[in-house]
Amino acid sequence: MSVKPRLYKGFRDIFATDIRQRNAMIETIRNVYELYGFQPLETPAIEYVDILGKFLPESDQPEGGIFSWKNEDNEWIALRYDLTAPLSRVVSMYPDLPKPFRRYQVGPVYRFEKPGPGRFREFYQFDFDTVGTSSVIADAEICCVICDTFDALGIEIGQYIVKVNNRKVLNGVLEAAGLTNFSKVITSEIVDAKGSIRKSVKEVTTNDIFRSIDKIDKIGMDGVVQLLTSGRRDSSGDFTPGLQLSDQEVQSLVRYLTTRGENRALVCDQLEDIVGKSPIGLEGISELREIDRHLTALGYEVNQVEFDPLIVRGLSYYTGPVYEGILTFQITDEDGMIKSFGSVFGGGRYDNLVERFTGQKVPATGASIGVDRLLAALTTLNRHRIHSSLTEVLVTILDKNYATEYHQIVHTLRKAGIKTELFLGSGNIGKQLKYADSLRIPFAIIAGESEFEKGTVQIKDLELGRQLSDTISDRSEWRQEQPAQFEVPKENMVAEIIKRLNRTR
Amino acid sequence: MSVKPRLYKGFRDIFATDIRQRNAMIETIRNVYELYGFQPLETPAIEYVDILGKFLPESDQPEGGIFSWKNEDNEWIALRYDLTAPLSRVVSMYPDLPKPFRRYQVGPVYRFEKPGPGRFREFYQFDFDTVGTSSVIADAEICCVICDTFDALGIEIGQYIVKVNNRKVLNGVLEAAGLTNFSKVITSEIVDAKGSIRKSVKEVTTNDIFRSIDKIDKIGMDGVVQLLTSGRRDSSGDFTPGLQLSDQEVQSLVRYLTTRGENRALVCDQLEDIVGKSPIGLEGISELREIDRHLTALGYEVNQVEFDPLIVRGLSYYTGPVYEGILTFQITDEDGMIKSFGSVFGGGRYDNLVERFTGQKVPATGASIGVDRLLAALTTLNRHRIHSSLTEVLVTILDKNYATEYHQIVHTLRKAGIKTELFLGSGNIGKQLKYADSLRIPFAIIAGESEFEKGTVQIKDLELGRQLSDTISDRSEWRQEQPAQFEVPKENMVAEIIKRLNRTR
Repeated sequence: MSVKPRLYKGFRDIFATDIRQRNAMIETIRNVYELYGFQPLETPAIEYVDILGKFLPESDQPEGGIFSWKNEDNEWIALRYDLTAPLSRVVSMYPDLPKPFRRYQVGPVYRFEKPGPGRFREFYQFDFDTVGTSSVIADAEICCVICDTFDALGIEIGQYIVKVNNRKVLNGVLEAAGLTNFSKVITSEIVDAKGSIRKSVKEVTTNDIFRSIDKIDKIGMDGVVQLLTSGRRDSSGDFTPGLQLSDQEVQSLVRYLTTRGENRALVCDQLEDIVGKSPIGLEGISELREIDRHLTALGYEVNQVEFDPLIVRGLSYYTGPVYEGILTFQITDEDGMIKSFGSVFGGGRYDNLVERFTGQKVPATGASIGVDRLLAALTTLNRHRIHSSLTEVLVTILDKNYATEYHQIVHTLRKAGIKTELFLGSGNIGKQLKYADSLRIPFAIIAGESEFEKGTVQIKDLELGRQLSDTISDRSEWRQEQPAQFEVPKENMVAEIIKRLNRTR
Repeated sequence: MSVKPRLYKGFRDIFATDIRQRNAMIETIRNVYELYGFQPLETPAIEYVDILGKFLPESDQPEGGIFSWKNEDNEWIALRYDLTAPLSRVVSMYPDLPKPFRRYQVGPVYRFEKPGPGRFREFYQFDFDTVGTSSVIADAEICCVICDTFDALGIEIGQYIVKVNNRKVLNGVLEAAGLTNFSKVITSEIVDAKGSIRKSVKEVTTNDIFRSIDKIDKIGMDGVVQLLTSGRRDSSGDFTPGLQLSDQEVQSLVRYLTTRGENRALVCDQLEDIVGKSPIGLEGISELREIDRHLTALGYEVNQVEFDPLIVRGLSYYTGPVYEGILTFQITDEDGMIKSFGSVFGGGRYDNLVERFTGQKVPATGASIGVDRLLAALTTLNRHRIHSSLTEVLVTILDKNYATEYHQIVHTLRKAGIKTELFLGSGNIGKQLKYADSLRIPFAIIAGESEFEKGTVQIKDLELGRQLSDTISDRSEWRQEQPAQFEVPKENMVAEIIKRLNRTR
């Protein structure tokens, strides 16, 4: 008969402290976004599947990656998997929206993927985008927003870096190397770890070059070169056939990928050498130079925003500048490995995304925060930690005959703006104080017949009590002195509590 | 090829002003809830169907009322339709939660129902509940929270009333009238509007008595009496067979339903007469008396909270006190009829809801706000209206050669905490000011070569301009004087904007 209480896998409940930490962080970020003129938008959790588009793994049936089902009219509907696809719908549905349309949106998105530790199927994103301008100043601004957000959250310069690249430069490098329309069929004999041989035939394109480059974080430059040439055997013994690029082709890619410079202008100078006369490459570099000019004019130096040719970004819809906001401080991962925290902001320019609705080009650029990852980072850095209880006072019930009097005490405290709870469970004073302890409520009010007759209350400073109990070892001494409990006239109660709250606030 | 941008019916986009109004309201309510010691909780949007239970219209297949589909393991999952069922899951899943567990939750819920004007399939609820106490003080507190919320929102005494009843009293009245296990088969001949006759055979129970009473708002006392006795023909000619209660039975119900009193204690006195010796009825009245005692001790008089036997509440899981927070001021509905705004808060005690998981009784009580309806009420009352733009200054671009200089102006304003947008669209100054107008941004900064040389900027007070343009009719005079535009040295810009913003804030 009875139902087993349980959560669907990949979903979770979030309790008070975590919610308050997340909300405090969101509030801080919201203030930064609003300072830049971004305004809130909310779209529904459910959209038509064709509106969301197929920017997650491809499949004819809407299954992989998204929660979808058929509605009353036999149409496929789904839970949104990001906030960008709905934004592009909004922009094309309301042509009268003043442009540029600068909006932020924060809310849960849903992925029908295999859940794991720290990987949920419902998680928060917090996006901001400028839609309707091709001005690269908008891209420079995105970088400023990311820096200012880190600053506002108390993450210091040196603990983060914003890395910028431009898809156009990468395309220019490919163009200069004659790889723009790269496409070939690769036949290879694969000897697996057990020694058996099988033949592999695979058609590869420019996308496979991007994909190879995108793996540099995991496999290093040598690994990338192997993938671009003869193929790579990983530590498990599995073999990935290579793209069989020529030495010259690989050289120009490696030269591009190893481009470094002391400042952004120097990176641009070097990139200019590599893209040669490629028009798209030169356009990309010119955009980077404009971004650099604006960042420099506003005082965002290379220790905050750098140009990094290694930033590729997985999503297929990016067309220009791409950005990542990376936390560089080190953490120990689940496997005990020390590594830098990594990317928490990601974004870029996507000038063609709205086009699939209107047929009209509506240029756009923006970025998105992984809210949960950023929150985990703040926890690591001990920023925005919330230790205290939301509730400030527990009024205990010593004698049920005085129920309305206790309630009046509660009412008085609330009228003074003090978050107060009347204990409504069952149990003696010991159990009531234990309840306050388990919620980490800092103060308790205790009053019995003698206090009501005298017109006083006992204030118990539970936080002080916790501290003192660490220093006093003698339990009888403790019981006698009650050093963290004191009696005050009722009319002084509010002032006394406020005084003590201010001390710890 | 191109996809038509469209929303799934019953869903909507919400833009900046509406979001800000709703968030401001939610913030105000949250402060009240937290003052009472309620703490935030978040549960997933998706739950197993059997967890949510069948408290919406019954059906074997999970269809009516909820969005549901089968997951990868062929189990039924669904979007939550309220926040109470998930709360009862949480309470039974985490037995170590300190009790009483006082939580609030705000968020969207989903109903797979026919949408209509103002009726959406995704809408916000804002619940607060105390779980794990049978103390009726918790119920008194719920009434205080509702009153305090109305007060905090600027709704005055006289514009609202909290109505309280107790299911136990109603059960007592039925017991006293010998109707506790009411059950009969009613056979009736129905003559429809066209004169044709059909036979109706129907089994009715106590629930049908509740349902008849619950219709009093729409059909009045006479209509209820008809439903309880011989049946009722509505204005369309449709006939509903009656429950064929005896005169005596109906009399005691009518006596109950017409119970009124100048204060809460008098209502209790009269109810005591009606329930006679019914134990459950007397228990209910004793609870109402305790609620009255607490409310009176805290100064919540009958002009804020009254006892009203007509409050029944539809949901089947209520077991004790039930509450409605009603807005009494009058509005004109879609059909041009004048009526009072109606209920925006609803709740009650549900001592058996957690039991279906644990088998253990976990008493609980709480209430829920219809966020959208309350927001509509505030709009009607002209409370919490937001007219102004979030963004305070638009820096226009007169001469693209100064792009970085404009950006520096923007940066200076943002550093001073002024929400500033750099115009990144295309178009001359006229188009840029029109953009500011359409967003109702109050100030624009304008600067060209001569201003940059002099080290000044032009501040255009767009709000003042709008006001003045209503008084000045001569367009040439307007153009010459530019009364709402003035030049200031760059270093005074921030101070000047802040001074003027403070004037209107």
